[in-house]
Amino acid sequence: MALRACLRGRSGFSGVLSQLSSCSSHGRVHVSPVVIAQRRNNSTSPRLQVDLDQGTGVAVMRLQNPPVNSLSLEFITDICINVEKLEMDKSCRGLIITSNQPKVFSAGLDILEMYGKSPERCGEFWRAVQEMWLKVYSSNMAVIAAINGSSPAGGCLLSMTCDYRIMADNPRYSIGLNETQLGIVAPFWFKDTMVNTVGFRTTEVALQLGLLYNPSDALKIGLVDQLVPEDQVLATATKTMTKWFAIPDHARQITKSMMRKPTIDKMTSNREADIKNFVSFITKDSIQKSLRMYLEMLKKRKA
Amino acid sequence: MALRACLRGRSGFSGVLSQLSSCSSHGRVHVSPVVIAQRRNNSTSPRLQVDLDQGTGVAVMRLQNPPVNSLSLEFITDICINVEKLEMDKSCRGLIITSNQPKVFSAGLDILEMYGKSPERCGEFWRAVQEMWLKVYSSNMAVIAAINGSSPAGGCLLSMTCDYRIMADNPRYSIGLNETQLGIVAPFWFKDTMVNTVGFRTTEVALQLGLLYNPSDALKIGLVDQLVPEDQVLATATKTMTKWFAIPDHARQITKSMMRKPTIDKMTSNREADIKNFVSFITKDSIQKSLRMYLEMLKKRKA
Amino acid sequence: MALRACLRGRSGFSGVLSQLSSCSSHGRVHVSPVVIAQRRNNSTSPRLQVDLDQGTGVAVMRLQNPPVNSLSLEFITDICINVEKLEMDKSCRGLIITSNQPKVFSAGLDILEMYGKSPERCGEFWRAVQEMWLKVYSSNMAVIAAINGSSPAGGCLLSMTCDYRIMADNPRYSIGLNETQLGIVAPFWFKDTMVNTVGFRTTEVALQLGLLYNPSDALKIGLVDQLVPEDQVLATATKTMTKWFAIPDHARQITKSMMRKPTIDKMTSNREADIKNFVSFITKDSIQKSLRMYLEMLKKRKA
Repeated sequence: MALRACLRGRSGFSGVLSQLSSCSSHGRVHVSPVVIAQRRNNSTSPRLQVDLDQGTGVAVMRLQNPPVNSLSLEFITDICINVEKLEMDKSCRGLIITSNQPKVFSAGLDILEMYGKSPERCGEFWRAVQEMWLKVYSSNMAVIAAINGSSPAGGCLLSMTCDYRIMADNPRYSIGLNETQLGIVAPFWFKDTMVNTVGFRTTEVALQLGLLYNPSDALKIGLVDQLVPEDQVLATATKTMTKWFAIPDHARQITKSMMRKPTIDKMTSNREADIKNFVSFITKDSIQKSLRMYLEMLKKRKA
Repeated sequence: MALRACLRGRSGFSGVLSQLSSCSSHGRVHVSPVVIAQRRNNSTSPRLQVDLDQGTGVAVMRLQNPPVNSLSLEFITDICINVEKLEMDKSCRGLIITSNQPKVFSAGLDILEMYGKSPERCGEFWRAVQEMWLKVYSSNMAVIAAINGSSPAGGCLLSMTCDYRIMADNPRYSIGLNETQLGIVAPFWFKDTMVNTVGFRTTEVALQLGLLYNPSDALKIGLVDQLVPEDQVLATATKTMTKWFAIPDHARQITKSMMRKPTIDKMTSNREADIKNFVSFITKDSIQKSLRMYLEMLKKRKA
Repeated sequence: MALRACLRGRSGFSGVLSQLSSCSSHGRVHVSPVVIAQRRNNSTSPRLQVDLDQGTGVAVMRLQNPPVNSLSLEFITDICINVEKLEMDKSCRGLIITSNQPKVFSAGLDILEMYGKSPERCGEFWRAVQEMWLKVYSSNMAVIAAINGSSPAGGCLLSMTCDYRIMADNPRYSIGLNETQLGIVAPFWFKDTMVNTVGFRTTEVALQLGLLYNPSDALKIGLVDQLVPEDQVLATATKTMTKWFAIPDHARQITKSMMRKPTIDKMTSNREADIKNFVSFITKDSIQKSLRMYLEMLKKRKA
């Protein structure tokens, strides 16, 4: 709990985590015994189930923030802490992220974190979103998204930060960065991550129109790498991990860092400006009004 | 006519237009009543027919510079002025560019503007070509190319500056940047625009070989987005516009600017050098000779 | 032999060759009579057969360093010298690179150059690898790879530096940058060249997993441009060259340089750091151990 408490305080948050981020491109992080003592292999918050198989070196992280794995500040912090723990655990070489909720991988950023909140709170939230991206996108582990449900907006971002994406072949599921449909805008590092995944032109259209793709179309544009029947998503992810483990970790990690470092550096060097920009945008009256209308629509849908 | 006269003088040209360009990433430009008074909704030069439907917010700009919509200095200036007017018109949210000439969308830059002209005139022409690209590529409007005929060289560039390209599925039509076939070279911002559209490798081969693609191949490489029967090009463009209008303008515009700004900034900061470079290249004896041979070949073909 | 002797001395090597490289973007290099006197059209080292057809302007360079065209320092130097000679020969407009060894185009960098060698020798070797890339990637000639066998690692790099790749449609052949499989890492300019060829995302996965593609998959991802039956690889390359010759050389060369210059500039300005980095990595005990194990595995396979 010490680590987590530390992470909650803003200075601790950015301090500890970004310190670790900065290590990530130089190979495995060697952790001190003090920190190791705090580690629990099968740690769980109520919102996450994390199981590390010490034999295979594969951890499975199950998102379980009902009803739709909305990425609240608390939930994102849980994810960051647990990814960080696994990162420091030498017995863990790979991470599979999947959902324990039916029909949805993650519905994306929690809109309630952006509606009617103080600028300070909005800034804290945004820093956490950045941190989650940083931790997963720069992870030394091989990270596979086992996308067993819909994955819009922030859910799509989380998927794209992984190394490989396996999606359930269910035409009712969709994935994409659909922010503009809500009147909000994906920031530059969401965009950069999508360009790295599906190229410039597809991103240009997808972001402007806020497109959500069914699995088959997502495969076609390269937004996911593989489709399998819904009940085989996790098993396929586990099996796929052996391909990634066949490569010596140091060679894979240096290569991954070489590919992603420019994108990560661009984000970290614009991090404070990006927070400022988000807070100033999201607290605008017109944007707050858009969000209120969207929330009311969601309420009506439920009723 | 005042605006247009102003645009003809070089200092006015770069002054007024680039001032407007610089606004384009900050949302809709608010125009003064004086300028509005000069606006005519269904303004036409002899070379352009522009119809704005105030109800739908869609303007259709028909290119009609016989016989093949060659982009002369005069014609380009007409295009710039009319795009600028629509940009300033709050009732206009989308622009469709199409051709009123049979079989051709636009044959590209008018070679007569590059052959036997003074360096000053060549420079003025090139500045106008840059301006047209800047105006359309950075437009706050959703811009759709309804490509109802062949679209080589500058015609392809104009198409690529739009947000979406619908082409007539007629195998006799072709599209591409074929400059090298004439012994001239597409400048870096033509190249950047093509890389943004079809990727690096396709651009590398296409530009070196001056490839023209039939509609089916253009669709395959992503140079156009959709093929429809010839008589449905404009109707499909109009219908497609509703998808773009479904997104709040501010979110779409910020996203578009985020995608294109690096490419636009690179061009504007190298604008004068690019003009100098063009003038020095095009006025070379060897290049002038190439162009003369090409013009003579065209004459023979006609005869 | 004077040129070659000169190239062997490190200062001469970087001097003469990089001087020529620096000319390559400004059109054909005009050579002095002294240098021309040293030129032999159908020059051959024991490891290379070079035939220039003065009529067509096409040179064919056959790699013949038995058994598998491993790229040793000597062999790479031969390649550099011969590419340089052809570059200076005004009668030569195009180069086809192919193999005279059965079943293999090139097995890539000679591991014996990296195992048990002094840091100085490793550095000399790496500078030569860089030089080969520079010479071919920035060549003013149209360069076609006639890939008539497997082409892993450095063999794939050599292929990717060409303008066009035609591969034998034999499912037993493979191509790719598989360095991580050996526990080593492709440097940034290998990566940049692959991104330029197949895009970011494909490169990201391919490099991390050290993927080798069969011809059919290589075609699908764009790593090669065309597949033909094995006995038609060279003939197709020769025929394809006529398409490249149909474009005026100056226009094609300026365009090629415009596309590749940023990648080349990035490499040349990081050249010394890249050598230092390679030497420090490859001389590590752990990496030397990996290479020894790999070499022992190869020996056992042969036996």
